[in-house]
Amino acid sequence: MSKIKNDLFLRACKKQDTERTPIWVMRQAGRYLPEYRKIREKADFLTMCKTPELAAEVTIQPVDIIGVDAAIIFSDILVIPEAMGMFLEMNEGKGPVFPDPFRTESDLKKLKSIDPFKELKFVMDAVSLAKRELKGRVPLIGFCGSPFTLMTYMVEGKGSKNYTYLKSLLYNKPLLAHKLLDKLADACTAYLSAKIEAGADAVQIFDTWGGILSPADYLEFSLPYIEKIVNGITKKNAEPVIVFGKGVHYKLKKLAKCGADVLGLDWTMNIGAVRRKIGGRTALQGNLDPTVLYANEDKIKEEAKKVLESYGPGPGHIFNLGHGILPDVDPTKLKVLVDYVKSESGKYHKEKM
Amino acid sequence: MSKIKNDLFLRACKKQDTERTPIWVMRQAGRYLPEYRKIREKADFLTMCKTPELAAEVTIQPVDIIGVDAAIIFSDILVIPEAMGMFLEMNEGKGPVFPDPFRTESDLKKLKSIDPFKELKFVMDAVSLAKRELKGRVPLIGFCGSPFTLMTYMVEGKGSKNYTYLKSLLYNKPLLAHKLLDKLADACTAYLSAKIEAGADAVQIFDTWGGILSPADYLEFSLPYIEKIVNGITKKNAEPVIVFGKGVHYKLKKLAKCGADVLGLDWTMNIGAVRRKIGGRTALQGNLDPTVLYANEDKIKEEAKKVLESYGPGPGHIFNLGHGILPDVDPTKLKVLVDYVKSESGKYHKEKM
Repeated sequence: MSKIKNDLFLRACKKQDTERTPIWVMRQAGRYLPEYRKIREKADFLTMCKTPELAAEVTIQPVDIIGVDAAIIFSDILVIPEAMGMFLEMNEGKGPVFPDPFRTESDLKKLKSIDPFKELKFVMDAVSLAKRELKGRVPLIGFCGSPFTLMTYMVEGKGSKNYTYLKSLLYNKPLLAHKLLDKLADACTAYLSAKIEAGADAVQIFDTWGGILSPADYLEFSLPYIEKIVNGITKKNAEPVIVFGKGVHYKLKKLAKCGADVLGLDWTMNIGAVRRKIGGRTALQGNLDPTVLYANEDKIKEEAKKVLESYGPGPGHIFNLGHGILPDVDPTKLKVLVDYVKSESGKYHKEKM
Repeated sequence: MSKIKNDLFLRACKKQDTERTPIWVMRQAGRYLPEYRKIREKADFLTMCKTPELAAEVTIQPVDIIGVDAAIIFSDILVIPEAMGMFLEMNEGKGPVFPDPFRTESDLKKLKSIDPFKELKFVMDAVSLAKRELKGRVPLIGFCGSPFTLMTYMVEGKGSKNYTYLKSLLYNKPLLAHKLLDKLADACTAYLSAKIEAGADAVQIFDTWGGILSPADYLEFSLPYIEKIVNGITKKNAEPVIVFGKGVHYKLKKLAKCGADVLGLDWTMNIGAVRRKIGGRTALQGNLDPTVLYANEDKIKEEAKKVLESYGPGPGHIFNLGHGILPDVDPTKLKVLVDYVKSESGKYHKEKM
């Protein structure tokens, strides 16, 4: 096993002392980078996901170009429902479409159980390849969507404003919803375990849509399945687990007890207040408003400073945006942010809490 | 001045004792009603807003058909920027478009100051007419958008996922943003005062987009202008002011001190927890997930009961959905909800807190 040279991210996940705050950003292997767009010209989005050489190449780009402290494997959360048998159309920028969405008990029967090393071998190959090509410079993160988030896409079939089909299913066929969620949780658990087996040093679960639920529905339909994954993953080396819950402002104390090492926060949370609220139980990742990268350099630094100050002194903070980097951001702006966090965060690690 | 026969809503806004919990729902004069769609066939959305007879007619429909405890004047928050000189295209269901959006200092100069009784006389006529035709059965609510919410539409020009133009303006031209927000706050203040003058018994400010801001940005760009309106409205008879902040979960204590009588909550808040958090400083309105109306009757009642129980005993609760009623909801489902709240909420008003 290759020793990782820059393991700041991994130590921060475990709330161990670090010299400075590590930083990576969600969707850092993406369209804002001209080098990514150049590869994207040659292949469509799903082909990139399914071609390990291309996926590994764009995974490593932000490490080389921006200097982030972790890589995240280039992929998509919807490869799981696709592997289970749902036909997926993916037009980057326009959003994914399942032309034949999940609605009934018979749709459940059609979903295959998957062996990630078979149906999703291309992901594991991409992870192994990226891991090898990183040569231990920084850790590699694997990820999946939360079962509730996957279900939202599968049931709606395409972008939705009101989640009519999803919510109707939750309220009128709760048993079917729970069966689907359970099946997805099993698939995600096997998938993340396989990614670790293939070389991932940490994993993140994206609960992008949990925040559209009422607090009670979140406790019924999203959190238990996140917990099932977190507690079911087979690890090699105590790899940390991050749970990112967008809009999930209401059950943070419960979420902090789900077994994850790190909670990822969106930009509407005050990271310092959350740290106090959960009593420092987990490390925290985030949470600069991604649109701050539309601002000038001074404003970017000012806003980054506010996040560092809000978290305050001591270990356990992984700097990130509060959501994915936006495709029309100038990459030099991200570089400004990353350089600022690298050069200025040290002082928060000298003082004790 | 006509005495209002059913004044439960007004008393609840003031946290006075009531026999039961009053209920109305946001967007109750809307597409889910066949009677509304019949009128809508004859006139487009903006024509309906600008024809007092039609606006008054659909305003009163849910009082007759559903039996809600308050009427809200049929209109749109964007009539203010339109009256200030911006060309507005409105396609119901597709969202509003400003083909020439607000972006620069010169756009600010183009915005006219308005006299609501001139440029928006059609709204005041609709209010007077609806008030007359209601014959004092229930109170009539007037409304406006928050300055930040109006600005979001004006700057983006159309539906937006990332709010690129808006956020760029906030971060790179904050002085221009503040000048626009101030001008809008003045217009909204005059507009709500005029609605009260014309006969509105209460007013609501919709801050639909405040929740896309970080807590610090919300305190800079949204809350101060809501406060300016709340404290600037000219009243006739201590008409209550409701502030509905969608997604504004992070500054509820500050929002509760803005001078409003009532806070409107979306469905991601726990209404009981908010009541305790703000120490009962204001009445609370809300907050059933609007998609619960896709459920069967028993589930609707069960979920409505949870909201009543969460708020708990004592006065100061106005039952509502946590967002507007969705256009594809069956109106008989809304009737089930309204009847349930009317028949079952009495017991929460017998006990003392």
